[in-house]
Amino acid sequence: MTIRPLPRYLVQRYHGWHATTYADNSAWYRRLADEGQRPRAMVISCCDSRVHVTSIFGADTGEFFIHRNIANLVPPYAPDGEQHGTSAAVEYAVRELHVSHLIVMGHSQCGGIAGCHAMCSGQAPELDEATSFVGRWMDILRPGYERVAGLPPEEQIPALEQVAVRVSLENLLTFPFIAAAVEARELSLHGLLHDIRNGQLTMIGEDGHFVPV
Amino acid sequence: MTIRPLPRYLVQRYHGWHATTYADNSAWYRRLADEGQRPRAMVISCCDSRVHVTSIFGADTGEFFIHRNIANLVPPYAPDGEQHGTSAAVEYAVRELHVSHLIVMGHSQCGGIAGCHAMCSGQAPELDEATSFVGRWMDILRPGYERVAGLPPEEQIPALEQVAVRVSLENLLTFPFIAAAVEARELSLHGLLHDIRNGQLTMIGEDGHFVPV
Amino acid sequence: MTIRPLPRYLVQRYHGWHATTYADNSAWYRRLADEGQRPRAMVISCCDSRVHVTSIFGADTGEFFIHRNIANLVPPYAPDGEQHGTSAAVEYAVRELHVSHLIVMGHSQCGGIAGCHAMCSGQAPELDEATSFVGRWMDILRPGYERVAGLPPEEQIPALEQVAVRVSLENLLTFPFIAAAVEARELSLHGLLHDIRNGQLTMIGEDGHFVPV
Amino acid sequence: MTIRPLPRYLVQRYHGWHATTYADNSAWYRRLADEGQRPRAMVISCCDSRVHVTSIFGADTGEFFIHRNIANLVPPYAPDGEQHGTSAAVEYAVRELHVSHLIVMGHSQCGGIAGCHAMCSGQAPELDEATSFVGRWMDILRPGYERVAGLPPEEQIPALEQVAVRVSLENLLTFPFIAAAVEARELSLHGLLHDIRNGQLTMIGEDGHFVPV
Repeated sequence: MTIRPLPRYLVQRYHGWHATTYADNSAWYRRLADEGQRPRAMVISCCDSRVHVTSIFGADTGEFFIHRNIANLVPPYAPDGEQHGTSAAVEYAVRELHVSHLIVMGHSQCGGIAGCHAMCSGQAPELDEATSFVGRWMDILRPGYERVAGLPPEEQIPALEQVAVRVSLENLLTFPFIAAAVEARELSLHGLLHDIRNGQLTMIGEDGHFVPV
Repeated sequence: MTIRPLPRYLVQRYHGWHATTYADNSAWYRRLADEGQRPRAMVISCCDSRVHVTSIFGADTGEFFIHRNIANLVPPYAPDGEQHGTSAAVEYAVRELHVSHLIVMGHSQCGGIAGCHAMCSGQAPELDEATSFVGRWMDILRPGYERVAGLPPEEQIPALEQVAVRVSLENLLTFPFIAAAVEARELSLHGLLHDIRNGQLTMIGEDGHFVPV
Repeated sequence: MTIRPLPRYLVQRYHGWHATTYADNSAWYRRLADEGQRPRAMVISCCDSRVHVTSIFGADTGEFFIHRNIANLVPPYAPDGEQHGTSAAVEYAVRELHVSHLIVMGHSQCGGIAGCHAMCSGQAPELDEATSFVGRWMDILRPGYERVAGLPPEEQIPALEQVAVRVSLENLLTFPFIAAAVEARELSLHGLLHDIRNGQLTMIGEDGHFVPV
Repeated sequence: MTIRPLPRYLVQRYHGWHATTYADNSAWYRRLADEGQRPRAMVISCCDSRVHVTSIFGADTGEFFIHRNIANLVPPYAPDGEQHGTSAAVEYAVRELHVSHLIVMGHSQCGGIAGCHAMCSGQAPELDEATSFVGRWMDILRPGYERVAGLPPEEQIPALEQVAVRVSLENLLTFPFIAAAVEARELSLHGLLHDIRNGQLTMIGEDGHFVPV
């Protein structure tokens, strides 16, 4: 049998959670189950194990609809009948759940961004192969690489982390239902960048630059 | 300007996090930044705002590499040069991070599963359209619908929530690098289902059935 | 044990508040504790979770003495030895704290007002029962219903939201110590109405009509 | 004309709020207006200008249904057809909004508690008069005074602040619909005490004593 039982330390923690967090919040969890979710915001962030948006924002259960993928990327609108998991998540959040905010949160030391930089600068030919899922996924950020290629080498990757957030936001606006919701002031878009090392959070501010929150 | 500043209540909560959780753990966050992540497990779960795996398992920062999409689905292996965000996340977790566990966690009251059921039973023609991202994404679970279509109506959706976990695990095994890692005992697969209402967690056990954890 | 510990997410947020907002303002909080409060105004508003007067007016800690009840109602003066929580709050604000302003702030989409309208128009017999606390409380607004009953149906509830503010102000003036303080120009009364949807604030102006602030 | 226009400094702050906080959150405010509120918790706290629960808990708009009265008191269940504003608020929160938590939050330096202590210990005959709204309201806490009368004088008022929270919780349980909801695990009760001077928050813990949060 290929499927294995859960490691015991996770089983123990789960039982601890059920006896404490679940027990202390069971009335709310029942309501959430019976009435459905009504999140105020969708967050698109990275799969990276070091970045948990629910912790940073002290989020209650039911507060954020969260999609996590490599490098918090959103592809451009492409209604071609293919499987687009990120586009499906965005569509569900905006058209079904009517979230009021769409937050893209990038982070420092992102392995996906570093891989994209290596690929685009010719240092990672294996990512250029058609069979590389990570490479093909990071193609979304290829146009972004052009914006940083002229910078001093040591500045390029941090700049690309910012650009990844911008490209995702730009691509979000290519979805007609997002552009319409933004136009109708039913949805607002936000761009954030989290620094793992010093904990700082910056956001795209009024003038379009990243500024400390 | 299309991009908006972050709502104030989130800014305040972030500063509260930085002054407490970050301050209390900064030594660890610095190491995570400098040495990189080393997660033991990857978790694939749903975007749903009511299901946070980090809470249920008391996860430390750096412990789980988490991909979240609609209905915790994994498509079959398809190295066709297209953009597959889920496959990219799985590839990165297994081939770059060498996680030891791959956990698929479904949940009750899943809007994606309910939509898939409606679509496959002919009650949601809008999801059948080529332009429906949610519909096309849920096509991954279409073969699973066949397994529940003969059940009494009220049992079909709960059964489909279980089947979604099984289909994802089956599809994971179509990835050669996953099959190889499982074969080499470097990776184990796990299937979980979380009930939002009563907090119960079940898993695919030794005999292949879902049993309480 | 019937009393439960506080949910963890609130505990975390509290600690965040203590490490930031409290820490940054501790000198002022100490003075407020040692010297007592000296609010300039009392505000009477609704319990509704969507209306926070401290946010709308950027209120400092110690600035507003706030009573919140269903539909921001004040009963007429009735020194009958019974328990009148609203009258007690008003008495304390005017006679002990000597507030200079008494502000009644109503709001749109008020569940209490809608209930009162249903009750008075015969559509909610359960609110007519002696045991309905909400029904008996909304009796305060029964005389106000007569003022709107002749309007076109769709105008009645918005009109009743305005009337609720007027009735409360009229009832405030039946309290001898309020009438005396107003007469002596030691206290002024204000009537406001907040629209949740568009954020607009209107007030009872010079000519007695609601006008934009 | 008795009703006065709003002071200019409040008008200015309101316009500032509308141009910033409202503008940044308008999508959410529209949803709250159109879909109605769905607060997770009701909070009963004091009118005191120095205690703002939304600040302490970083609350989002729509998160807490808040009733504020003198000394955060709840009278016993008394379906006598009279006007009970606090009972109406509690009834609306539990039976209409189905809140999952009922939080009573007391605080230090409470003028109402000090008045109750003076009245019960014979030092404030004016509060004993039938016409004193504050005195009659504080009668709710008279049984609580007996529990502290034997303590050393300087400990009595702080102890009475704790007792006020306990009495309110005990009285809440005399409401049949609250007892039933607690029994059915659809509602949980919480007792908190906030110290204005040092910012500390204590709660009634597992063993029934107040402990730091």
